[in-house]
Amino acid sequence: MQDVFQYVDSHRDEMLSDLFTLVRQPGISTQGTGVVETAQMLVELMRRIGIETTVYETAGFPIIYGELKSPGATKTLLAYGHYDVQPPEPLELWNTPPFEPTIKDGRIWGRGTADNKGQLLAHIFAAKAFLQTRGAPPLNLKFLFEGEEEMNSPSLWPFVESHKGLLKTDAALTADGPSHPSGRQLINCGVKGMCYVEIKAKGANRDLHSMRGPMVYNPAWKLVHALATLKNRDEKILIQGFYDDVQPPTEAELAAVDAIPYNAEAIKRDLDVDELIGGDGSYYRNFVFGNSCNLAGLTSGYQGQGMKTVLPSRASCKIDFRLVPKQRPEEIVEKLRAHLEAGGFGDLEVEYLGGFYPSRTPVDHPYVQGVVRATRFVTGKEPVLSPNMAGSGPDYLFTGLLGLPSVWMPLSPHDSNNHAPNENIYLEGYFEGIKISAAIMEETAK
Amino acid sequence: MQDVFQYVDSHRDEMLSDLFTLVRQPGISTQGTGVVETAQMLVELMRRIGIETTVYETAGFPIIYGELKSPGATKTLLAYGHYDVQPPEPLELWNTPPFEPTIKDGRIWGRGTADNKGQLLAHIFAAKAFLQTRGAPPLNLKFLFEGEEEMNSPSLWPFVESHKGLLKTDAALTADGPSHPSGRQLINCGVKGMCYVEIKAKGANRDLHSMRGPMVYNPAWKLVHALATLKNRDEKILIQGFYDDVQPPTEAELAAVDAIPYNAEAIKRDLDVDELIGGDGSYYRNFVFGNSCNLAGLTSGYQGQGMKTVLPSRASCKIDFRLVPKQRPEEIVEKLRAHLEAGGFGDLEVEYLGGFYPSRTPVDHPYVQGVVRATRFVTGKEPVLSPNMAGSGPDYLFTGLLGLPSVWMPLSPHDSNNHAPNENIYLEGYFEGIKISAAIMEETAK
Repeated sequence: MQDVFQYVDSHRDEMLSDLFTLVRQPGISTQGTGVVETAQMLVELMRRIGIETTVYETAGFPIIYGELKSPGATKTLLAYGHYDVQPPEPLELWNTPPFEPTIKDGRIWGRGTADNKGQLLAHIFAAKAFLQTRGAPPLNLKFLFEGEEEMNSPSLWPFVESHKGLLKTDAALTADGPSHPSGRQLINCGVKGMCYVEIKAKGANRDLHSMRGPMVYNPAWKLVHALATLKNRDEKILIQGFYDDVQPPTEAELAAVDAIPYNAEAIKRDLDVDELIGGDGSYYRNFVFGNSCNLAGLTSGYQGQGMKTVLPSRASCKIDFRLVPKQRPEEIVEKLRAHLEAGGFGDLEVEYLGGFYPSRTPVDHPYVQGVVRATRFVTGKEPVLSPNMAGSGPDYLFTGLLGLPSVWMPLSPHDSNNHAPNENIYLEGYFEGIKISAAIMEETAK
Repeated sequence: MQDVFQYVDSHRDEMLSDLFTLVRQPGISTQGTGVVETAQMLVELMRRIGIETTVYETAGFPIIYGELKSPGATKTLLAYGHYDVQPPEPLELWNTPPFEPTIKDGRIWGRGTADNKGQLLAHIFAAKAFLQTRGAPPLNLKFLFEGEEEMNSPSLWPFVESHKGLLKTDAALTADGPSHPSGRQLINCGVKGMCYVEIKAKGANRDLHSMRGPMVYNPAWKLVHALATLKNRDEKILIQGFYDDVQPPTEAELAAVDAIPYNAEAIKRDLDVDELIGGDGSYYRNFVFGNSCNLAGLTSGYQGQGMKTVLPSRASCKIDFRLVPKQRPEEIVEKLRAHLEAGGFGDLEVEYLGGFYPSRTPVDHPYVQGVVRATRFVTGKEPVLSPNMAGSGPDYLFTGLLGLPSVWMPLSPHDSNNHAPNENIYLEGYFEGIKISAAIMEETAK
């Protein structure tokens, strides 16, 4: 691999310049600004490198598909990424301009440096390094880049479903998310599922003076009483059948999780909390295998300063459930509705806002083991191997719809501040990521 | 009384003009605009009429005190009112300019026409009518007008406490609030108490990605679980000792309440609700005697459109408890804190934002009966007599601190839209109110 690595080392300026150009172009899918322009810029870059690139229009933002053939190769790797970014707000918390990439303290700062432009480019520049040094990559490459990830990928599922032939490959590789606090390379073999709902309670047809409290039912109370039946104070979810489809972790998965290093005291200090759910010893098992029923938002009535004596007409909450194999978001919604109905809360409205299927590739799968070897080879350290990340993503598209083994391998620091001000990637990590991607291509080709 | 009533009838333009001038001057205490100017205008009017008027500065806005002696009279009546108004927002919902009083459809529209300028003037013009026709009112009059009622009268309590001698009188009269839907004159012999608190729950030191839900406690859940212990679904308040100090209604109070006409079907139709707390038959008993623990506001995490996967760091709610004699807001706060502590929610922060003492004058008190006779005399109809209103106010200052009998007598329509757009008072009701106030002075002098 030294030829390829040397190419990376001797073309750093060029690879930085291309990243900077991409980062300077905001493409904020949730706000609908600059996404198409970003797609065009990425397409030009891919074509310039020699990747045969097609743009697929969707109901939302374009999906970019690229192909790079390796003469005589039998294996094909699918690299996934996204070119849209989160909004930069709150702007006043940025130390550098969000869309002017800035190198400082060994990091590249800017929106999209980590999530996901700086990581997505690892695959493109790995391919370029192979092309420039050996004339071709060691295996066939297919690239799948979308512009709607930050809005939960609404077009990706139908696209994958209707392009299974096009996307027929042997394994899927995604570089996304923040890495492990230990600094060791993290390899996630899957994602949690997610089920996001909004629950709405309705009272009178208008807000009333709260003097009517003794006479008129308050929807905020109805919501509170309903919510209190969903989860007990020990964090057990009380929805009938919620845990029915949970697939217990395998021995290999448990062993992998129990080998992940962490410092519970440091975590508590960082968050300024006295205790963690289940105690210090459960952190990583909960991280990987734990369900949650998270109240992401609560809203009703008056929320300003001081007093306002109002009897609200509406109350609502947002909940995201994190799911593990083989729970299904649609079924969780149905169980939630049945639970509320059975508890006398049938008049609450439950709206399903979206979700993800949980997904895992076995930690001992040959593809995963190849990724482990490649990573160990580049970094010189044993990577952290996790059965799945704590977050969610469209991994089921690869494992479920396409039947592929799939890994999610973050190339940005654990404090890369994705979705927050001062997003960043390590300068050296950016180049190391290109080498890791190249090494994975080499391993997977075997 | 015909001399006095005729004076009112023949000076309508003048009395309207003075109201219009006052309404045109916004005096919004919660926003701090124009309140002092309004006070000056009212003081000039009182002095012009012949009321000896003193302005008392406070930590907030001025308290206006006026005196009008009746040579040889032994009785003194204290008339209370407020010259500040609510903000006019939302402006777009007004059919007429809020600060340009407009006569339309038999009503005077404008901010302050009902709450409280148009009602406060009833006492001033009643006094003027006596002065102009008989040279003096039938009893001594003292006027107490504040400019902080819409911000819960923070200066009034200390003022009354330190001016008990000045305010020594035989009875207190307030014209405020909306009247009874039947159109019959409403006489409230007191107010409910109120205890307003904010409860805050704290989680980690910052909002987190909700993927950390299985590991990190969520303050919104803590708040929900705590709230669910405060009140059950049958509206019973579960705080230990909450009802201990409730003084059961007297036979006379029960009889008065059960004589109040109402149409439960019409109320439900108006609010678009299927049922009322305790059923249709309990409406007025709850209205007058019922406690409440009202969730006036709930707030945590993400409250915008769609999904945001956040684990909030803060959650809070606002609660107003309505109290009846002899519950005390400070004691309710202590009971609430003890309840939370005992339930394992001692880390929630309870902030007492303010309140009122409950207060009642017996419905069969001679002063009340005189007010009933006076009202019946002017309107030709039996008034609706209620032991107290459903709302709260500083009545305890009169009954508790000054030891007076006190009534609250609304002179504005039940749909006068106090605190809302399109505030109004009936044109004829404005003049009738002056006559009612005059008749009460005459009756109370006896």
